[in-house]
Amino acid sequence: MTPLDLDRRNDELAAWDRDCLLHPTTHTAQHARGDTPGRIVTGGEGVFVTDRDGNRFLDAFAALYCVNAGYGRTEIADAIAEQAHKLAYFHAFAGHGNEPAIRLAKMVMDRAPDHMARVYFGLSGSDANETNVKLAWHYNILRGKPEKRKIISRWRAYHGSGLVSGSMTGLKVYHDRFNLPLDGFLHTHTPHYLRRPEREMDEAAYLDFLIAELEALIAREGPETIAAFVGEPVLGTGGIIPPPEGYWARVQALLAEHDILLIADEVVTGFGRTGQMFGSDLYGLRPDFMTIAKGLTSAYAPLSGSILSQRVFDVLMTGADDFGPLAHGWTYSAHPIGAAAGIATLDLVDRLGLVENAGETGAYLLERLRERAEGHRNVAEVRGVGLLAAVELMKDPSAGTWFEPMTVGPKVVAEMARLGVMTRAMPEGNIVGFAPPLCITRDEVDQVVDAFGQAIESVLGA
Amino acid sequence: MTPLDLDRRNDELAAWDRDCLLHPTTHTAQHARGDTPGRIVTGGEGVFVTDRDGNRFLDAFAALYCVNAGYGRTEIADAIAEQAHKLAYFHAFAGHGNEPAIRLAKMVMDRAPDHMARVYFGLSGSDANETNVKLAWHYNILRGKPEKRKIISRWRAYHGSGLVSGSMTGLKVYHDRFNLPLDGFLHTHTPHYLRRPEREMDEAAYLDFLIAELEALIAREGPETIAAFVGEPVLGTGGIIPPPEGYWARVQALLAEHDILLIADEVVTGFGRTGQMFGSDLYGLRPDFMTIAKGLTSAYAPLSGSILSQRVFDVLMTGADDFGPLAHGWTYSAHPIGAAAGIATLDLVDRLGLVENAGETGAYLLERLRERAEGHRNVAEVRGVGLLAAVELMKDPSAGTWFEPMTVGPKVVAEMARLGVMTRAMPEGNIVGFAPPLCITRDEVDQVVDAFGQAIESVLGA
Ligand SMILES: Cc1ncc(COP(=O)(O)O)c(C=O)c1O
Ligand SMILES: Cc1ncc(COP(=O)(O)O)c(C=O)c1O
Repeated sequence: MTPLDLDRRNDELAAWDRDCLLHPTTHTAQHARGDTPGRIVTGGEGVFVTDRDGNRFLDAFAALYCVNAGYGRTEIADAIAEQAHKLAYFHAFAGHGNEPAIRLAKMVMDRAPDHMARVYFGLSGSDANETNVKLAWHYNILRGKPEKRKIISRWRAYHGSGLVSGSMTGLKVYHDRFNLPLDGFLHTHTPHYLRRPEREMDEAAYLDFLIAELEALIAREGPETIAAFVGEPVLGTGGIIPPPEGYWARVQALLAEHDILLIADEVVTGFGRTGQMFGSDLYGLRPDFMTIAKGLTSAYAPLSGSILSQRVFDVLMTGADDFGPLAHGWTYSAHPIGAAAGIATLDLVDRLGLVENAGETGAYLLERLRERAEGHRNVAEVRGVGLLAAVELMKDPSAGTWFEPMTVGPKVVAEMARLGVMTRAMPEGNIVGFAPPLCITRDEVDQVVDAFGQAIESVLGA
Repeated sequence: MTPLDLDRRNDELAAWDRDCLLHPTTHTAQHARGDTPGRIVTGGEGVFVTDRDGNRFLDAFAALYCVNAGYGRTEIADAIAEQAHKLAYFHAFAGHGNEPAIRLAKMVMDRAPDHMARVYFGLSGSDANETNVKLAWHYNILRGKPEKRKIISRWRAYHGSGLVSGSMTGLKVYHDRFNLPLDGFLHTHTPHYLRRPEREMDEAAYLDFLIAELEALIAREGPETIAAFVGEPVLGTGGIIPPPEGYWARVQALLAEHDILLIADEVVTGFGRTGQMFGSDLYGLRPDFMTIAKGLTSAYAPLSGSILSQRVFDVLMTGADDFGPLAHGWTYSAHPIGAAAGIATLDLVDRLGLVENAGETGAYLLERLRERAEGHRNVAEVRGVGLLAAVELMKDPSAGTWFEPMTVGPKVVAEMARLGVMTRAMPEGNIVGFAPPLCITRDEVDQVVDAFGQAIESVLGA
């Protein structure tokens, strides 16, 4: 692979970008000064994107693991265009609605676990998590338990970057210098065997430890003060970490014992990424709330959702009869453009067999990464499920010594970009993440793994 | 005007709607049972919308005062369609970006007051308000004032329905049964002379009272604990209430004295509704944050924004140099589809002279409403600015006695709907609100006023 020349144009558009736009999760000062000129992406096709400087990348992270159907899907663009011309918007308050939102709600409920009852549509994964917390509080207030409101999340979780969703997130940079987490948002251990407290602990002992810690937290706070536990079926941004065997069954038993609701944050895992429709299907979760976004529309238009269980919905019904309309709604809830994109996306997921491909080609990706990486002296773990995979790097895995966080990982990712493959350095570690569009082929997986192999050798030696 | 037959179809789509979709701010139980079958809107043109049962309405509230350019604008739909086919999405994290977001940022900053420095794009007005609170906290932490974090809002404010934005909102139904407001979100008086505490107070004394109350609140809490004051230039959902003469100048002087930031929530007032580009222009506000949404895209695609002042941005720059990237971002921040819709919308606003029309036709609407309504014995006030107007009903305005909230207002609105004109009953009162698309003509205003006159007579007598 011959490296790209990543120099970028410096013209009027680049100046406007520096002078006018505050980018999400960007080094504000470096961007404004032009120290790190932005990469302006102009098109894409399948797993590839092109920027306006003529560079072409294989996007092995599907932007932010969201362009699941791949770029340039005419079917989704056509659906958006048609709806934009027919009726771009009408609100859905007070029982009003639009056809695509209803059709998509039906498609989502057909795919969700049987015990789920309704879907509310928002815009972002963050706002859907906020909706879930709001409704969990409401549910407990209606049941006469207003004090039951704390939320337990996990360190290394990512649930968004708002004040509530950022409080649920368990990554330090989202808390520090923002007065977060807000009161009542608690965190328990990251379920990751590589990070076990004592190196001698075996996997069974480690699982016991995790459950005992969660149990102790619940006891310390008082179960009567705890509304919900929120978790990604597979921890995502915190490092792409599949759960230890048996983890979810034990966690769920504990929650049930203490009348604590489960919010399954399926923003990344929903709609096929793990090789099943939902992460909840894969791990046997029975959540009260499921948070969906990303794969729901393949990011072609903003849309998120909160799927509620029948038992929560039943209480909401009674609440409405007692107190009137549910006071919750974004102007753009159930937006027709997002809904049209969602319908076309879920159709494509079925038609192209993307869930199955995530399972099969995901297994191939993991196998190829293992072959290529596991011999390397700095590779601590190659892990994954479906089309979610990560390689974690340590100074000396056998001695258990770590690199300084965000030193080596970002270098490998930068080197891969030079080789024309986009991946992501996951925060608070040295973790190279892979989450390509679900339409990726074995051939394209080979390109990703080759670039990874070349990059890791150029950064860390053979 | 002959009343419409508002019976609605009950078919598969209606059943899916009841069985699958949780609508925003809707009576959950009535909707699920089909007691209040939904109105499914299928198309629109100018100020008119049509539903799938063949009814046609003049939408005198622009959906939720957001379809400012009117329905069926091919220019906006074409822009969305073109962008969807070119590049529906790429993320804007870590300095990445897309052309339409940059171009729209430039257009927004060209229109914003001179002292503003950057715009961050979100999805909803609620999330943009949350961004503003998050950045106000961050700003104070970076300045070594972590305790300066309380937010002062006003009763009857509407700033969204999330947990943070709903805490800023000052309407009871958004607090009750949701554990809101969160700690540190305070409310001061609604600036509305009709609601003065003593009927004898003149307007100057009332303004003194408002300012003294705000001053007392600041003193009681301690200015060193207060980060920001948030206000809509014209109170919207709380009743469409223009500020008392001189109110904003006095409030701003007080905030400046105590180093309290001003968040101007321009979600409704932004981009022309008041007859000026921003409410801040009309009332001489110098905010540190401006919240924008709705008119930014005319609702054709979800997009909101937080515009920051130079003094806030300067601190953010230093913060980034000291601590690294700003940890704030939604996956769909700066979404290309929303940005394309925004560009086309702001172009149309200019080309069609919608800001001017809001001023001129708005004045005509107010004049016509006054003519038609002011003689009526239950009309307490006809008020407005630009294309924002309200008629407030009381049992006996001269005696100062009120109707039970939400009794008469909703009846007038329902009667107007039967006459083919959509308006909105504002909460916690009996207030009929008007906020049509900014392209409304005098002829169409006449239709609205005629329907209003007919409705009020049929509900309350002549
Ligand atoms: C698991 C999870 N939840 C929630 C979110 C937040 O979604 P959004 O960025 O759309 O607000 C993300 C975003 O990456 C996520 O990965
Ligand atoms: C003044 C104001 N701010 C914020 C919002 C919230 O915007 P959204 O509904 O897009 O979250 C609204 C919505 O009506 C509003 O009127």
